Amino acid sequence: MPSKAVDTGKYLKQVQARTDKLLDRYLPGVDVPPHLLHEAMRYSVMAGGKRLRPILAWAAYQYCGGDTEGDDLAIHYAMAALEMVHTYSLIHDDLPCMDDDDLRRGMPTCHKKYGEAVAVLAGDALHDVAFNLMASTGSTAVVVELAHAIGTDGMLGGQVADIQAEGRDVDREEIIDIHRRKTGALIRCSVRVGAILAGASADTLEKLSTYGARIGLAFQIIDDILDIEGDQSLLGKAVGADCKKQKATYPGVVGLNQAHDDAAELIAQAKAVLDEYDDNMLVHIADYIAQRRN
Amino acid sequence: MPSKAVDTGKYLKQVQARTDKLLDRYLPGVDVPPHLLHEAMRYSVMAGGKRLRPILAWAAYQYCGGDTEGDDLAIHYAMAALEMVHTYSLIHDDLPCMDDDDLRRGMPTCHKKYGEAVAVLAGDALHDVAFNLMASTGSTAVVVELAHAIGTDGMLGGQVADIQAEGRDVDREEIIDIHRRKTGALIRCSVRVGAILAGASADTLEKLSTYGARIGLAFQIIDDILDIEGDQSLLGKAVGADCKKQKATYPGVVGLNQAHDDAAELIAQAKAVLDEYDDNMLVHIADYIAQRRN
Repeated sequence: MPSKAVDTGKYLKQVQARTDKLLDRYLPGVDVPPHLLHEAMRYSVMAGGKRLRPILAWAAYQYCGGDTEGDDLAIHYAMAALEMVHTYSLIHDDLPCMDDDDLRRGMPTCHKKYGEAVAVLAGDALHDVAFNLMASTGSTAVVVELAHAIGTDGMLGGQVADIQAEGRDVDREEIIDIHRRKTGALIRCSVRVGAILAGASADTLEKLSTYGARIGLAFQIIDDILDIEGDQSLLGKAVGADCKKQKATYPGVVGLNQAHDDAAELIAQAKAVLDEYDDNMLVHIADYIAQRRN
Repeated sequence: MPSKAVDTGKYLKQVQARTDKLLDRYLPGVDVPPHLLHEAMRYSVMAGGKRLRPILAWAAYQYCGGDTEGDDLAIHYAMAALEMVHTYSLIHDDLPCMDDDDLRRGMPTCHKKYGEAVAVLAGDALHDVAFNLMASTGSTAVVVELAHAIGTDGMLGGQVADIQAEGRDVDREEIIDIHRRKTGALIRCSVRVGAILAGASADTLEKLSTYGARIGLAFQIIDDILDIEGDQSLLGKAVGADCKKQKATYPGVVGLNQAHDDAAELIAQAKAVLDEYDDNMLVHIADYIAQRRN
């Protein structure tokens, strides 16, 4: 029997739509005080985005045989939590004292729209709601997973290293370390959280962690490539920003051609740890990351 | 038999010292990268302070008969988490875009010492470590307690309301609402977390919540009073700052004499919900809050 053809684009759109519904459900309403803060939180979270982290959590959860019946599952809390944490990191990263970005997803950044004080607090509040949701899964294990991934050993450590690398020469090892932490850790965590909530075996969890780490690094390498080769209208943010800020980037260290090759190799290595290639959404998502234009 | 005389001062010093040890144990080391971020986190957390929130958690835990034997208890994680969350809120509150304070506990504020970018990230990192520790208790209930207390319905909501009240007239009801959320929610949460980890009954938890809410509000009223009447060398921060910033304060609304009376009344009402007055540290802590000079 031939394997069922999988429409990846349709799958991604479906999970994106479900994620948007979950985010709307779990974000505090603008009719509830503090109105302005809730408005700022919603503004940044609902501005769109690929919803890659919730998609990965859901796909890993399905891959591991998690129960997908019902409208109020632990995995739903986790999906919303992962996207909120991602948005919190973007809001704080965009602040004038950090990357000082004016545009995000084609719209003014949170501090441009609401001022710095509200942007700092909106980021803090999303950070907080995310942990509330993660704990609402009933599993302290996934709370600890999230905290590790976004802590000083993970995302926050990567942000500091990224700032400290501005304007100076870095080697391949250092840029890989920065990217692994800044972006890779939360992507790997998203896959792991989905697997944990599905009750994956230690062996499967280990495999999926490797998959997550590889696509996470590939994702950021491609991000760096798109900042050079990308289309601003598709990206929703200025291209060439990394260069202007003298950011350390992967193509800046190894060159554009090598960066393309390394990203493709990482994607192939990520897929290689998975057991089955047919009708496996984690494989298709890896391909989607390789081919993304925004 | 006469009740055992309790040396409150000695008790507070002992729990402060234990808290300092726990904080040192659970904070990442400065020898671990990112060094500067870890240094900034430690700088702000180890700058001292009353350690009131860990003390309240510990005293409530004891009051509810929690097991105090051992060096690695769930309550220890929670005590460190509560102090780290408090410090994170101070670091972000002191930022130029927020209260713009230069001095905290007699020392330069975090952004004065390390710059704004590191201060934002140090606050974020403490927020994160706190949730990691809270989840390490093994109880998702206390993670949710913390998230609620410091979220937009609690501390963060209070901070926004506080900023929005600057320079305009507020009434007694509004200032009580701001204080309850800005400061009271985390103090009440500290008491509740101690009680929950000790396995308190619903009835006891309810009583201690009332106690916590009352001392929490009293604490902030006294804070406002000290900003007018206090001794800068004891406080470790500038006095008169609220007035200069046109902050809404409790004595600003009801007058100094009434503020003193209301704080005393709240302390008395807080003690009244407790079952026994002799040798009860929660009673003595309430008295300590009433008499504090810093």
